Amino acid sequence: MKFLFELLSKFSVSGDESDISNFILQHAIERSIGWKVRPEMFFGEDFHDCILLKFGVPRTAVFAHIDTVGFMTRYQNQLIPVGGPEIMDGIRLRGRDTKGEVFCRLIGTEDACYHDFPRGIEPGTRLSFDQNVRVDDEFIQAAYLDNRLGVYSALKLCETIENGWVVFTTYEEHGGGSIPFLIKFIQENAPVKQALISDITWISEGVEHHKGAVISARDKFIPRKKFIEKVVQLAEKSGVPYQIEVEAYGGSDGREIQFSPYAIDWCFIGAAEDFVHTPNEKVSLSDLDSMIRMYQFLLSEL
Amino acid sequence: MKFLFELLSKFSVSGDESDISNFILQHAIERSIGWKVRPEMFFGEDFHDCILLKFGVPRTAVFAHIDTVGFMTRYQNQLIPVGGPEIMDGIRLRGRDTKGEVFCRLIGTEDACYHDFPRGIEPGTRLSFDQNVRVDDEFIQAAYLDNRLGVYSALKLCETIENGWVVFTTYEEHGGGSIPFLIKFIQENAPVKQALISDITWISEGVEHHKGAVISARDKFIPRKKFIEKVVQLAEKSGVPYQIEVEAYGGSDGREIQFSPYAIDWCFIGAAEDFVHTPNEKVSLSDLDSMIRMYQFLLSEL
Amino acid sequence: MKFLFELLSKFSVSGDESDISNFILQHAIERSIGWKVRPEMFFGEDFHDCILLKFGVPRTAVFAHIDTVGFMTRYQNQLIPVGGPEIMDGIRLRGRDTKGEVFCRLIGTEDACYHDFPRGIEPGTRLSFDQNVRVDDEFIQAAYLDNRLGVYSALKLCETIENGWVVFTTYEEHGGGSIPFLIKFIQENAPVKQALISDITWISEGVEHHKGAVISARDKFIPRKKFIEKVVQLAEKSGVPYQIEVEAYGGSDGREIQFSPYAIDWCFIGAAEDFVHTPNEKVSLSDLDSMIRMYQFLLSEL
Repeated sequence: MKFLFELLSKFSVSGDESDISNFILQHAIERSIGWKVRPEMFFGEDFHDCILLKFGVPRTAVFAHIDTVGFMTRYQNQLIPVGGPEIMDGIRLRGRDTKGEVFCRLIGTEDACYHDFPRGIEPGTRLSFDQNVRVDDEFIQAAYLDNRLGVYSALKLCETIENGWVVFTTYEEHGGGSIPFLIKFIQENAPVKQALISDITWISEGVEHHKGAVISARDKFIPRKKFIEKVVQLAEKSGVPYQIEVEAYGGSDGREIQFSPYAIDWCFIGAAEDFVHTPNEKVSLSDLDSMIRMYQFLLSEL
Repeated sequence: MKFLFELLSKFSVSGDESDISNFILQHAIERSIGWKVRPEMFFGEDFHDCILLKFGVPRTAVFAHIDTVGFMTRYQNQLIPVGGPEIMDGIRLRGRDTKGEVFCRLIGTEDACYHDFPRGIEPGTRLSFDQNVRVDDEFIQAAYLDNRLGVYSALKLCETIENGWVVFTTYEEHGGGSIPFLIKFIQENAPVKQALISDITWISEGVEHHKGAVISARDKFIPRKKFIEKVVQLAEKSGVPYQIEVEAYGGSDGREIQFSPYAIDWCFIGAAEDFVHTPNEKVSLSDLDSMIRMYQFLLSEL
Repeated sequence: MKFLFELLSKFSVSGDESDISNFILQHAIERSIGWKVRPEMFFGEDFHDCILLKFGVPRTAVFAHIDTVGFMTRYQNQLIPVGGPEIMDGIRLRGRDTKGEVFCRLIGTEDACYHDFPRGIEPGTRLSFDQNVRVDDEFIQAAYLDNRLGVYSALKLCETIENGWVVFTTYEEHGGGSIPFLIKFIQENAPVKQALISDITWISEGVEHHKGAVISARDKFIPRKKFIEKVVQLAEKSGVPYQIEVEAYGGSDGREIQFSPYAIDWCFIGAAEDFVHTPNEKVSLSDLDSMIRMYQFLLSEL
């Protein structure tokens, strides 16, 4: 839990992921001594702020995005969104420009929003939700659960995985752009035919807290039926709680796998949250546990 | 005609194209004995449910998508669209889940639609229009003409083509995703500079039944003027009836050719239909004949 | 100035860029004798109507699109847009079909627009704003400044650049499509990690005439913070006037760099204009000068 709290304290609005990238890398380097298999690690400026871990002989790649939604300062005291943050009058935001730390509140609505910081903030400065982590017996509630829990689950997977890629991606919340070069690198080095997206989805009419990891049959985009069926059969065999999602909207790194120049099947698997893209994202701890166990099972079987 | 009827009886909502893929492949294997040139065939899991046929030394590739629009069951008795089906209260739908065959009716409107099947249908099940083929002296009317006629025309082309790729693609109705890996395979094996999209378009103010194959100068996307002019000049020379389309909306596999990392010219050529994406798509038989003859002519000249 | 006037007289609605491409190529061939470094030139049908100039050992690529917005004739006297031209009743349009030159006026609104040419114009004919260049001590005003000034600036850069790619792209105003094959060619021949987009942006609440070249921190898409900071630091060092833009909308060739399968940082730098996508685009001459000098400085330092 201590590590998860640290992970939740990092700032990583899309396009500014270097801090969290360094933190994840440091963790991977230190902990990999105790992992079942020591991975090859690929990172650095050639990969922007992404990290690739290659374990054994991969058949499947797991992708977890490390960025979050947030805001960018425009002119005067205007704010424009990065990704799709929920806009709620009065929420606390934080960030930093060359003059120092920024703590302020958001004022306004979807149509036009502003900050109330006494001094001007340099145009182009990223702000994100001020963090406030709350944990009880059943739930964790905080900003950035999407996708720090996906990152956390991917790092737990690293402890047991023998064969596979575990990949930390950037920009996902704002249209993507790292998957194309990551998937090219993967396919040219140790190609796979299967990809899983380790990310957080929504509570909905059909997806409830405490019902297990969510396997998505579709969001805005549609994976191949054959592959979803294979994943669901394994999920069934795993004994780990899971539920099936069918959505008409929403997207993930899966979109860029679908449109990549490689025939790679993909499936989104993750816990579901309430209060999406707010400072109060809320996930069931048992669902997080199911997510972690499901990935550990699937990566050994797929 | 018997073969076309069989083709029209297959189920292939985007993402679930294995049945029709097998059917087309079987047909190609059996019939290719009588074709002018025996093609190399590429298919199987490395190509998902797509099929590539390589004839001689290709200069041009022809793409025909094998999927159709349809619906997917969500929770309770909700339906969400796959691709852009016309939503009409009362139309008959069919499909299959692990409990067996499904025949039901659609209830509702664009905003919210449902099925009336007595038992629940498993979430994530694909449904499509119940088929009812009608043919008279002038027209064929059925579900799935878009794009079974494009597939049919491409298979007729196989009888005479000496040089070129004939490619059967998937997912086209729901955003695409197979063209990127297909075009990569083509360019790395027997590259082309020209692509034709064998698909069905719309009757409109400027496109009428019985006026011939439609050559599209643009839809939402815009091919190069030089190439359209080349195609139109050959069409003129062919003596086969044709008409020019200019649309501001709509898309095809041509979109993914345009945005591929290869400098390939593309042009959409196909018959036009009324009652698009309904169970009652209607195409002039003489336009279908023009489409077939136009492709046979163009592939020998381009 | 004479050369800029000639450049502004060319017709190049997206998809029909061969005239201006030939003109730029001819200029480059003739003038390159006097350039500091003689570039390798790549052009011709393998590159559609794009041109690539490779100077020395490139670290950075500069992209300038050569197409403009315009209109296409549909059926009867209808017009549909190519790219996003401003639609204003009464503006003069010109073009050419196989029957000869076309000069007419646009009639109508965003919802439906027409031309008033006495004879029919062949469907699929491209029309664009009639040109009328006006220059005074402070401003240039004309059609096509977006992006003839970006092209002009890129050609001025050619005079001094020692290492880098200067690339002239097509289709940008209508969704793009040349960047993917150009960037592939670049990365497979003399790869870069940095790209600058030489294009024209908008006057806005935060971007004013005479305040210098605009460095965009974002438009609809978001470049990496690290790279923007590097560019701004160099801009500061250059002594050339510049201003920072932060926009929620709009796009450029940068979008396709972002989504390319290469880890390449990108940044949009250009002068700002008023009356965007009209026959009366208006740019400060001193901003154009800043743009030219900024590119010359940056390409030697980046």
